[in-house]
Amino acid sequence: MPTALFDKVEERLNSPDLRPRRVLDRCNVETIATTEFALDSLTNHGRLQQLGLGARIRTTYRPDDVCDPEVPDFANNLARFGEITGKDPTVWAGMLDAHRVRRAQFRAMGATATDHGTPTALTVDLAVTEKQALLDRALAAKLDPKGAELFRAQMLTEMAGLSVEDGMVMQLHAGVRRNTDPVLLSQRGPNLGADVPVRCDFVGGLQALLSRYGNSPDFRLIVFTLDETAYARELAPMAGYWPAIRLGPPWWFHDSPKGMRRYLDAMHESAGYYNLAGFNDDTRALLSIPARHDVWRREVCGHLAQMVAEHRLSLSSASELGEWLCYNAAKEAYRLP
Amino acid sequence: MPTALFDKVEERLNSPDLRPRRVLDRCNVETIATTEFALDSLTNHGRLQQLGLGARIRTTYRPDDVCDPEVPDFANNLARFGEITGKDPTVWAGMLDAHRVRRAQFRAMGATATDHGTPTALTVDLAVTEKQALLDRALAAKLDPKGAELFRAQMLTEMAGLSVEDGMVMQLHAGVRRNTDPVLLSQRGPNLGADVPVRCDFVGGLQALLSRYGNSPDFRLIVFTLDETAYARELAPMAGYWPAIRLGPPWWFHDSPKGMRRYLDAMHESAGYYNLAGFNDDTRALLSIPARHDVWRREVCGHLAQMVAEHRLSLSSASELGEWLCYNAAKEAYRLP
Amino acid sequence: MPTALFDKVEERLNSPDLRPRRVLDRCNVETIATTEFALDSLTNHGRLQQLGLGARIRTTYRPDDVCDPEVPDFANNLARFGEITGKDPTVWAGMLDAHRVRRAQFRAMGATATDHGTPTALTVDLAVTEKQALLDRALAAKLDPKGAELFRAQMLTEMAGLSVEDGMVMQLHAGVRRNTDPVLLSQRGPNLGADVPVRCDFVGGLQALLSRYGNSPDFRLIVFTLDETAYARELAPMAGYWPAIRLGPPWWFHDSPKGMRRYLDAMHESAGYYNLAGFNDDTRALLSIPARHDVWRREVCGHLAQMVAEHRLSLSSASELGEWLCYNAAKEAYRLP
Repeated sequence: MPTALFDKVEERLNSPDLRPRRVLDRCNVETIATTEFALDSLTNHGRLQQLGLGARIRTTYRPDDVCDPEVPDFANNLARFGEITGKDPTVWAGMLDAHRVRRAQFRAMGATATDHGTPTALTVDLAVTEKQALLDRALAAKLDPKGAELFRAQMLTEMAGLSVEDGMVMQLHAGVRRNTDPVLLSQRGPNLGADVPVRCDFVGGLQALLSRYGNSPDFRLIVFTLDETAYARELAPMAGYWPAIRLGPPWWFHDSPKGMRRYLDAMHESAGYYNLAGFNDDTRALLSIPARHDVWRREVCGHLAQMVAEHRLSLSSASELGEWLCYNAAKEAYRLP
Repeated sequence: MPTALFDKVEERLNSPDLRPRRVLDRCNVETIATTEFALDSLTNHGRLQQLGLGARIRTTYRPDDVCDPEVPDFANNLARFGEITGKDPTVWAGMLDAHRVRRAQFRAMGATATDHGTPTALTVDLAVTEKQALLDRALAAKLDPKGAELFRAQMLTEMAGLSVEDGMVMQLHAGVRRNTDPVLLSQRGPNLGADVPVRCDFVGGLQALLSRYGNSPDFRLIVFTLDETAYARELAPMAGYWPAIRLGPPWWFHDSPKGMRRYLDAMHESAGYYNLAGFNDDTRALLSIPARHDVWRREVCGHLAQMVAEHRLSLSSASELGEWLCYNAAKEAYRLP
Repeated sequence: MPTALFDKVEERLNSPDLRPRRVLDRCNVETIATTEFALDSLTNHGRLQQLGLGARIRTTYRPDDVCDPEVPDFANNLARFGEITGKDPTVWAGMLDAHRVRRAQFRAMGATATDHGTPTALTVDLAVTEKQALLDRALAAKLDPKGAELFRAQMLTEMAGLSVEDGMVMQLHAGVRRNTDPVLLSQRGPNLGADVPVRCDFVGGLQALLSRYGNSPDFRLIVFTLDETAYARELAPMAGYWPAIRLGPPWWFHDSPKGMRRYLDAMHESAGYYNLAGFNDDTRALLSIPARHDVWRREVCGHLAQMVAEHRLSLSSASELGEWLCYNAAKEAYRLP
């Protein structure tokens, strides 16, 4: 019986109407974005452009491979980064130039946003000599965990600066302890599970980045968290103050019916609905995407319906907000044409 | 059009029925309290007393100007504190005597309470020599941030001791990171925005103060927090144990419909309704006060109605609790006559 | 009148139908478990067995008296531990052997579980020499607070190892700051009140224990917390990953109607209902036990009814889950026959 089920699933998955582009058509997906690392060749996106799909399937610049000195082969990654871009990534300014080159290439493949995954939300704004010293030690593989944390923290601030330059929307996914099962990690490799959210300090963490770029008129930072305690305490007040900040939708463990309700309830009063980034999900499971958006639409409507029932919103405002939260917000937040 | 709107607002604000005292009449405000710093002359409150408004408009003793060594001109503030009171604020005992003098003067202007705003809830109970050493360094402007934190932490314990002596209700507003936008701070000055709540540890923080004064029969401490995670985990159990503790209403970012519901839901089971301090809001916007109280009354009634609907409270108990939470609780908590 | 009430209560408590075993009969209690310390003689449980009540009233192995070097007379406790078991508790391996002996004796008195109460959830997995050094210092009463924390942290890992060996279900109750009122403590002794929950880090804390034993097929760890912020952020994702973990019911301050609802709402989406351990309460008040289970049953049904009303569960699934959560889950979680 289990085998029969798997066979049936396999058969369905191979049917033409479940091919990826057919799914996009049937589910009325206007735009979908992948993330590629800084060293990715973008060949597939090039092919998609040739097929006329460039506006529908966009890439996103996710340079963790050259921003996190704790990834394996970091020094090699930086060397390749230099080769690909013709810049010298062994000096801090050259490394930033290499990012500029790649960001432009990603934009040519439809990217409107960057994405950054870090264990914490720490950012710093160090002096040039300190930055170069961190880079030297990273290239020599001599950074201790605290140095690696500082390196990532400085890179977030740099990425914000580059977003101010080129207008790409910056996304931050912070606050996960990855690979907590050493057996899984050694047998199957990284990023396959046993990731657990941890507490995240956005107020202290983002202080350096926001002090530097928080008032730049065109800067936009979409913040995602797995620590729901930050919703009402930190993120909603921060979004209420800083024009740059939009609040990313409930993410990963929290993109569920109750999780979405907690998010909407905790965020809207201090942040306002128009500081929410709408919904996107964060999955490799193509078929789950339309279903997740459906859940979001239902929960948004449930939330708004309660506001109407309690006479806190008019039906026409709720209707407008529903359309905003389910469609326009994401389009506007990500600066999609 | 925006100008027209502003003109209209200006015109309305200048109409006689929106003059402050008319607002108090029309909105049936029995008592309102301002806060004044320790160095304030209280001239305005003196005039209000002469006008027979002393019982209606009371002051509150908020001595952050002489309790926080990180305020600008702290040493000058202490010097003036000595001049005003005739005490010697350069020795610890003299400084406490100066507080005694001012607290009495504030009580003469109707004050029944004190108010203390600190970044954290830390309290300590140091030896006399350590206290004097902190004061010496504060006067010499040689306290580092950790020393300043200790100074404030000790002052909270001292203020509790003075409340035990004179019966003034002590209010603690803890847990905000202020002025997080350096541009706003440099261009417009402090306390104008970009304040964000941070996590707050009340269990460890208040240990020293409560160990010393928590069992004093007449001591009353009203605790406010912006960290909702402390509601059910820390503050409700603490209020359930310590007779001195009353729980301040949801404050600032949380004095909103959902914020009030979360507060009531999380607090009442471990703390009990009769350990809640009722509602006050904390605003400079006079016109918003009646509206906020209206929201509180609605949310209290909504909460209690649910309890009745679920057969967890009788209608008569709910009715009694509603009156308590909306009116008597605050009067009793602040020892208003 | 108060005296009259006390007299009435006393009279009722002495009536035959309120004798403990009659209460168990009337309230249909199938199994109840006490906890005994490692040095307990288990005489009462022996008598219960002779009365044929061994399967109904079971003991639980709660060895805080020989696992926490900060209990009074710890060295004496360990010496008695050696006498009772015939093992040498002054060497680490001998101490573990003494636990093996006592765990077997507890199992003979019906125990299927162990219970461990610690201030934090910290676990470590140290080298043998480090463990012996901790034990030597504990016996000499020379452990500082940090050393005591390490000792307890290592003991949790050892207890997990022994549970892997003998199949006893391990319970962890972590995250309380005990005896926060020094007056109560000095006048009345420990464990009488003024205990307040504190934040608890389960992700970092349990890392060592889970890295070592989290994949052992027969290991089961039931985790209780008083920090509700860990529900959705840490414990539910951890229970979703680690087969060993079951989530203990809302405990102490949180085994209340709203507390139970917050627990169910926050846990079920990432953990799944079948990783919940059902309900037990944790009280010395025998008469409250049936009442608390009644509250749990009502809140479970209320939660499930909402899921059915929102078309998220079928009535038949909800019915099955209700029975699971109110009865079978606990039986299965604790491996009761």
